[in-house]
Amino acid sequence: MNTLAHHWHTRWPLIQAPMAGSQDSALTLAVSRAGALGSLPCAMLSPEMMRAELEKLTASGLPYNVNFFCHQPPVPDAARLTAWRAVLKPYYDEFGLAPDAVSASPARAPFSAAAADVLAEFKPPVVSFHFGLPAPELLARVKSWGAFVLSSATTVEEARWLEQHGADAIIAQGLEAGGHRGHFLNTDLSAQMGAFALLPQITAAVRLPVIAAGGIADAAGVRAALALGACGVQVGTAYLCADEATTAPLHRAALQSEAARHTQLTTLFSGGAARGIVNRAMRELGPLNPVAPPFPLASAALAPLRAAAEKTGRTDFTPLWSGQNASGCQSAPAARITVLLAQGFRNEIPPEEGCTQRPGKAN
Amino acid sequence: MNTLAHHWHTRWPLIQAPMAGSQDSALTLAVSRAGALGSLPCAMLSPEMMRAELEKLTASGLPYNVNFFCHQPPVPDAARLTAWRAVLKPYYDEFGLAPDAVSASPARAPFSAAAADVLAEFKPPVVSFHFGLPAPELLARVKSWGAFVLSSATTVEEARWLEQHGADAIIAQGLEAGGHRGHFLNTDLSAQMGAFALLPQITAAVRLPVIAAGGIADAAGVRAALALGACGVQVGTAYLCADEATTAPLHRAALQSEAARHTQLTTLFSGGAARGIVNRAMRELGPLNPVAPPFPLASAALAPLRAAAEKTGRTDFTPLWSGQNASGCQSAPAARITVLLAQGFRNEIPPEEGCTQRPGKAN
Repeated sequence: MNTLAHHWHTRWPLIQAPMAGSQDSALTLAVSRAGALGSLPCAMLSPEMMRAELEKLTASGLPYNVNFFCHQPPVPDAARLTAWRAVLKPYYDEFGLAPDAVSASPARAPFSAAAADVLAEFKPPVVSFHFGLPAPELLARVKSWGAFVLSSATTVEEARWLEQHGADAIIAQGLEAGGHRGHFLNTDLSAQMGAFALLPQITAAVRLPVIAAGGIADAAGVRAALALGACGVQVGTAYLCADEATTAPLHRAALQSEAARHTQLTTLFSGGAARGIVNRAMRELGPLNPVAPPFPLASAALAPLRAAAEKTGRTDFTPLWSGQNASGCQSAPAARITVLLAQGFRNEIPPEEGCTQRPGKAN
Repeated sequence: MNTLAHHWHTRWPLIQAPMAGSQDSALTLAVSRAGALGSLPCAMLSPEMMRAELEKLTASGLPYNVNFFCHQPPVPDAARLTAWRAVLKPYYDEFGLAPDAVSASPARAPFSAAAADVLAEFKPPVVSFHFGLPAPELLARVKSWGAFVLSSATTVEEARWLEQHGADAIIAQGLEAGGHRGHFLNTDLSAQMGAFALLPQITAAVRLPVIAAGGIADAAGVRAALALGACGVQVGTAYLCADEATTAPLHRAALQSEAARHTQLTTLFSGGAARGIVNRAMRELGPLNPVAPPFPLASAALAPLRAAAEKTGRTDFTPLWSGQNASGCQSAPAARITVLLAQGFRNEIPPEEGCTQRPGKAN
């Protein structure tokens, strides 16, 4: 049996990638019920919302993963925020918005003692982090109830760092992946590798099991990842149009159109580099506009524009998160998407050829 | 039997990628003798040199591929070339070079009637092109002796274009690949995809067989490419340190060092976007410096700097071409590298799962 599936009590070593803004626990539960590991993104949840979701997940008796960001929140720089508003002013004028307009925008908070307090009530079996790992004392709390800890590496150096700092398995996030890049040691985007190059180099550099992410949209992608030495896979984009996802209709339409063929890494929507389908904001402002404030501060000024444009059915200022391979996006129950992906595990290659590594837990 | 290998009269559907500047027909022959398809890069060869090489290849009785660029040569813009020299002036001063210093630099010529005349004498069995395809009348000449025609696609649109314009198979060049990107319809580098995303989308969009390139460095990479629907693979970087390659010692050393972990797409060395190991020129000038003249005109002004720096054992201005996965670079005979890669074909996945397409020739 696959060691990751064994540790997670799932049928397959397949993780539904946490996708803040496109899902709640309904998707998590549907995926876990189907035999994979459903994830709940927690970065944008208040403690009360998190507790409500965790109650549902715990009540199911199913395995699940909760995901947190662990970035260092930047000190807001008033001049930078003003400069960013100035860059956006022509659009504010176009949409008739007051220069100081404010809309609800996601507050992306890093993992905290308060979040750990909530988690301790529920003892989630798997906890994944993005942007490295939390401070040692916070990580120790999570590990105290035996949680299996995951984090993303986008370079060999990050994989080694995660292995040395307590991860139980490593998600190798290829450049193809949608949403936020998990890089935390090197901000140079040119250091980000395609999965074909990243997977073999990470599996050669660490002892921990490696989970492939980025560009995997079907059973063939799962087989390819296993061939490259992955012990499991994490899939996001293919779940974005699932019946149980909360992905907005405009976003679903974009994912299932030819537009999804052209994605870019952009910092416009949060300040952090994230992959989405090219839209007007990315085309006109440049996807990596240097004025955009650091993560997660860029989102506030864009939120009123997004709301105004969406009212008229336009995605000009909407983050249309997507990986480079949206070909797996289907309007279907998450269970069906899961089973289709899991067919990649059927003809699993013999242990001596593929995954030869053991989770940190087993050491 | 694999249809590509059948058409090429090789044992495996494996192409040694043509690597101008790092090889001559010695590598081509060593690879073809081992059972794969050796390639000869011709873009920097005069008709006389090409004839000399083709005589050796023809005499061997082995299959082989000849490779050409088919770019539209730009009209030199004196102001741009002057501006480029001005950007480089501090380095000219540092190395004590006269501002108008000239060194031998590769003249990259597109495929021409003169080249077709030479080819017609030898009737090479496989001809591959980079940057699209030559003009219809030139392509017709190549096809007149039954040559199997290949070209690279970096997007779905380019794959469809090649299918419509006479290619017999398509090389899907993932973003991981070393050397020059083959893009020819869209110069926006953000449209370039990792192989995990590119392969499934191209195989779904065309009927022609697809050959995977980019990031494949060992048998596991070959297996992964086949799992994603490729009918064959093209491997370059893993051959750069082969005994029969002419790769310079400084370049070999870089490929086998930790430095190879960080490559970038750069236009500094030719004007065309190409992937190489990060060096001083890329760090200090920026890998995509907007002043660099268009392909292939950027190389002339850099050549004296390259020569001066290399004299002191430095690669500050040397193009250190490499894909994102140099882990397969071995100082070994090309035959050994070929056989190691070919082990990926041993457990070829059943036809109904992997490659299901037939070459254009069979239509």
